[in-house]
Amino acid sequence: MPEYRKDIILDEWVIIATDRAKRPENFREEKVRVQVPKTEVCPFDKGNESMTPPEILRMDSSGNMVDKSKDWLMRVVPNKFPALIPYTSPTSSRYGVYMIMDGFGLHEVVIHSPEHITNISKLSEFELGILIDVYVRRIKGIKNDKRIESVVIMLNQGREAGASLEHSHSQIFALPMSPPVLEKEIYGTKRYFKKNLRCAMCDLLEFEVKEDKRVVFKNRDFFVIQPFASRNPFETWIVPKRHSPNFENALSDEKESFAHCLKLVLDFFYYELNDPHYNYYIHTGPLQYEAAGHFHWHFELIPKLSIKAGFEIATGIDICITTPEYTAEFMKASRIFNS
Amino acid sequence: MPEYRKDIILDEWVIIATDRAKRPENFREEKVRVQVPKTEVCPFDKGNESMTPPEILRMDSSGNMVDKSKDWLMRVVPNKFPALIPYTSPTSSRYGVYMIMDGFGLHEVVIHSPEHITNISKLSEFELGILIDVYVRRIKGIKNDKRIESVVIMLNQGREAGASLEHSHSQIFALPMSPPVLEKEIYGTKRYFKKNLRCAMCDLLEFEVKEDKRVVFKNRDFFVIQPFASRNPFETWIVPKRHSPNFENALSDEKESFAHCLKLVLDFFYYELNDPHYNYYIHTGPLQYEAAGHFHWHFELIPKLSIKAGFEIATGIDICITTPEYTAEFMKASRIFNS
Repeated sequence: MPEYRKDIILDEWVIIATDRAKRPENFREEKVRVQVPKTEVCPFDKGNESMTPPEILRMDSSGNMVDKSKDWLMRVVPNKFPALIPYTSPTSSRYGVYMIMDGFGLHEVVIHSPEHITNISKLSEFELGILIDVYVRRIKGIKNDKRIESVVIMLNQGREAGASLEHSHSQIFALPMSPPVLEKEIYGTKRYFKKNLRCAMCDLLEFEVKEDKRVVFKNRDFFVIQPFASRNPFETWIVPKRHSPNFENALSDEKESFAHCLKLVLDFFYYELNDPHYNYYIHTGPLQYEAAGHFHWHFELIPKLSIKAGFEIATGIDICITTPEYTAEFMKASRIFNS
Repeated sequence: MPEYRKDIILDEWVIIATDRAKRPENFREEKVRVQVPKTEVCPFDKGNESMTPPEILRMDSSGNMVDKSKDWLMRVVPNKFPALIPYTSPTSSRYGVYMIMDGFGLHEVVIHSPEHITNISKLSEFELGILIDVYVRRIKGIKNDKRIESVVIMLNQGREAGASLEHSHSQIFALPMSPPVLEKEIYGTKRYFKKNLRCAMCDLLEFEVKEDKRVVFKNRDFFVIQPFASRNPFETWIVPKRHSPNFENALSDEKESFAHCLKLVLDFFYYELNDPHYNYYIHTGPLQYEAAGHFHWHFELIPKLSIKAGFEIATGIDICITTPEYTAEFMKASRIFNS
């Protein structure tokens, strides 16, 4: 029997219809995936630093910020083909019945390694910790520009997830507005708080722990869960236990715990699901105002294991062909989470 | 220079960033596309009628509704693996902090031809007229069930757009609620009306005609346009001139004019863009209440010519790598629209 499930934060229904489902293990199938075209010279490899725009940040392999004379483990550079640019202003104007505005914002690239690795799961837990620290440093840096309202940190792993260069990298976008998905989450958590005087995500976590059906893993500071109103097979969230609207305010212990969860999750997809393409991103509160105090930052990973078809595009309602209970069980039983 | 453009109905920004663009003609490139796996016996072919669930509607090649003893051109049947089912009730219940509800609704399939055609563009203009009539008949039939609030008509053309059977068919979903995208469009047109005492879509069409930059084609009753705040390369709308919230109330002349536009659009994609995979759907007002009088029904076709990546999923803001002005010009100059 298919069912509707409501996401309590977005206040939107999804449809879980497993009649057409594959069993979780079938998602492991060998599959021919479209790959990123190879380039002769990779601009992200060690030695080709001059091929990228001027560097913003450089980290060494101990996790220290270093200057350009030093060897690097990670670099942050502006995107060479940016979707947003800083040298204009966020002022909209009328154009007939429409509104239009210069593409103001920042679009940066985090290069994950001096070596030509093509999968983020090649990073060690320690290196993922450095990556998390890079994200935090950049948000704190960007925050000084008062025209920026929100920062989006995301990764496209594999061509089918939108990657256009195979060398592992993530991207940082800074926007002069809160994007619609974040606005909806902020609005939803505010509405929930007004009604219950509680954080929706804190309540959700409390219920999930009690139910013990969709929690894949927990450590001192984080939960790894398959969300109840999952929009995608194996959609995976990493959520901090401590209520905090802004990712950049994570404590240093929390950053370590986050890296630990992230490593397990990435390894699960790489080793246990046969390396599917996926996107991940961090939903973190707006930078410049505290109205989002009810918001609870979190990480989401969305594997490309199903296609968003006409129904999903037309309606905004996703049809998920597996239950999160089933995928959680499968994950928990795997070598990665069961050792 | 990238730019933000605001959709006046959804009140959401998109980013048009053409620095990373292909030229429109490059979208024509030969491309290896993932295809729907072939089945030995197609349940939609003539002679295999017993392989589908019991038929709901049968049309002959003159466009008349006929009984099962007659030859058919199109058939409507329930989906054999439905995402929604009619034999339950739309009553939600609490489950801890969440809400849950049986998957109540209808999920039907319109088989476009007794022959094994794999592309909807193989239908003639006359046959597309019959298909439009089938859509209208089904909505009018479904309307009698007062538990249904909205109907979604959609097509997945090709595997990359989500088709799982290659025999050309479209799908009809009936839902006990208005889905989020429709709700937003209804809310947006209401807000616009309150402010301007005008229909947003009527104003948009008037402006588009005056500008003459994004109108690809018009006939007596319809416009074919590339939307100003386009979310996808070659996103194409077919919009009726006459303000009307509900597609099923189209006049019979209008149905003919719509079929004419639809034929041209489908032929353009098939012949001039090298048969990309795509989705189309009709956004039509809710069935059971008249609160959506400011809504203006329309048709949208979304080609799979770019990938929704991490940024789009994380934010809900789409990045479009072509301008609708450029694609409109390309379409107008093509053999299909220029003859």
